[in-house]
Amino acid sequence: MRNRRVMVVKRCDAIPAADSFENVDDDLPLCEELGLVVEVLLVSVDPAMRGWLSSEVNYQTVPTGSVMNSYGIGRVIESDHPEWNIGDYLYGNVGWQKFSAMDVKDVWFRVDPDSIPLEKWMNALGLTGLTAWLGLNLLGSPRAGETIVVGTAAGAVGSVVGQLARARGMRPVGITGTPKKCELASREFGYEKMINYRASGDLSLAIADACPDGIDLFFDTVGGAIADIVFEQLKVAGRVIQCGTASVSTWVPPPIGPRRERLMLVKRLRWSGFVVTDHADRFVEAQAELAALIRDGSLITREHVLEGLEQAPSSIQMLYEGLNQGRLLIRP
Amino acid sequence: MRNRRVMVVKRCDAIPAADSFENVDDDLPLCEELGLVVEVLLVSVDPAMRGWLSSEVNYQTVPTGSVMNSYGIGRVIESDHPEWNIGDYLYGNVGWQKFSAMDVKDVWFRVDPDSIPLEKWMNALGLTGLTAWLGLNLLGSPRAGETIVVGTAAGAVGSVVGQLARARGMRPVGITGTPKKCELASREFGYEKMINYRASGDLSLAIADACPDGIDLFFDTVGGAIADIVFEQLKVAGRVIQCGTASVSTWVPPPIGPRRERLMLVKRLRWSGFVVTDHADRFVEAQAELAALIRDGSLITREHVLEGLEQAPSSIQMLYEGLNQGRLLIRP
Repeated sequence: MRNRRVMVVKRCDAIPAADSFENVDDDLPLCEELGLVVEVLLVSVDPAMRGWLSSEVNYQTVPTGSVMNSYGIGRVIESDHPEWNIGDYLYGNVGWQKFSAMDVKDVWFRVDPDSIPLEKWMNALGLTGLTAWLGLNLLGSPRAGETIVVGTAAGAVGSVVGQLARARGMRPVGITGTPKKCELASREFGYEKMINYRASGDLSLAIADACPDGIDLFFDTVGGAIADIVFEQLKVAGRVIQCGTASVSTWVPPPIGPRRERLMLVKRLRWSGFVVTDHADRFVEAQAELAALIRDGSLITREHVLEGLEQAPSSIQMLYEGLNQGRLLIRP
Repeated sequence: MRNRRVMVVKRCDAIPAADSFENVDDDLPLCEELGLVVEVLLVSVDPAMRGWLSSEVNYQTVPTGSVMNSYGIGRVIESDHPEWNIGDYLYGNVGWQKFSAMDVKDVWFRVDPDSIPLEKWMNALGLTGLTAWLGLNLLGSPRAGETIVVGTAAGAVGSVVGQLARARGMRPVGITGTPKKCELASREFGYEKMINYRASGDLSLAIADACPDGIDLFFDTVGGAIADIVFEQLKVAGRVIQCGTASVSTWVPPPIGPRRERLMLVKRLRWSGFVVTDHADRFVEAQAELAALIRDGSLITREHVLEGLEQAPSSIQMLYEGLNQGRLLIRP
């Protein structure tokens, strides 16, 4: 049996295309290397991967010549570690490959495949669902009756934010780029109003119409021109959670936009950057609530699984083109 | 005896000049009007006044045909209010005038002229000193050993921020625009390093040199291009307090600058807008510490008093031209 790995061969300051990667067959990893060997069952395709491949400053980066970084679920097939037995399931930094040698420090949490399906552990209970729960609760100060705007309402994070906000009595207003996603987010993801930014005409008017009392909380996964419009409509004491910048294709050099200093001051806004892995100490608490919501049917998520690592190199483009129907995963 | 009042006669989207105002002689106000009449002893000249006269959205505005808004100290000469006696001193929205009819809701706090001189009540114990103390402590999460950068280190707010930060064991680094102010801020206001942005050459290098470990906290009173450079050098988990935008002369339309979304995210920054009057419930606590520091000589402030209201119309320009030596006040 051989390993298959997707290697990074070229950095990229725009959206990474297939030529940034190369599929390589390799020997199986050895347990002596890092203490654990897992068979990789699912990996993800994330908007954040663009940042990992860029040459810019980032909170995470993947060097050329390494296997592509990815969170995923693995089943332990060899272990030198007393806490991990053969057959255990884990979620961690497994990479885009069939088998992975792992250090326990790269394991984020234990997965119970019997309580909740593995795809849900990669989505609502994984880093995207955790981003929604922890961003909203730790930085958002959500209050019943408030209006929350989410920039990618049908995305992996936004779809969970809408449902959690709705469950807390907020009015979620979502933005997305196709009528189909608008319809999906309204029907399944808790959004009271949806705006298709590609077909709304004057987006500022469309947002004002959907948020007649102004905006209390902006869960910003997009940045750029759409975020500028939302900022203008934030209320005094409004909050912004910056958890992605998906609408801006390159930050080298940083693009220009209207300065926000005056709005920050006049409206006493609070704008916070959020990276979920800073908050690992809160994962279990968040997962307990998320799992309960999944089990009672009040948290719906969708997953789109690509079969085979050969689909990995073009998958980031697929994500940015909006061709996926739900959280994009790969089964190696 | 007649009143003298400085009326707003023209709105202004840049720095207000003398022609925005008109000195008018008028009858003395009547106690029946609002319940209190005070003789105005000191008023202030604040950077924020530019915003009050602009046609843009702001947290406070002064309509044309009204007396110019200003905080100041008044001595009660008539009172219909049981809590205020003739001879009491107060700090509140007295306006640029010799006598002011006041509603008790426009009184911010009681002044004790015997404990601390009136000029200090207009400075360290007034809204500027309170801005320094409350901004730093409520939004800044100051920690010993951290580096704090202040955009107008020799100004009314910045001079207090430097000393408070130093007293908390932080490393204050200040920016200002003249060698004289650099020298003053180093000698009197607690700054460990001072940068003259007009003479520093490459400001980015000068800041990096003064902050070799990066910047933890930015007390931003300026905004604009200087703030862009500071943002680039903020550390992960850095905080920004936006308490002014003095470097930008007009916000109609908002000027453009490099987008900050990516820095907010990658460095998990927290950027908060701060307006001191939101925090009146904390004034007494802040003043107690500020007064103790003044009395024991560890908090030094400077005041620059203009004699006579005829100097008021040109005083905002004087402030923005940096011609004042300390907090700019007017004795009507």
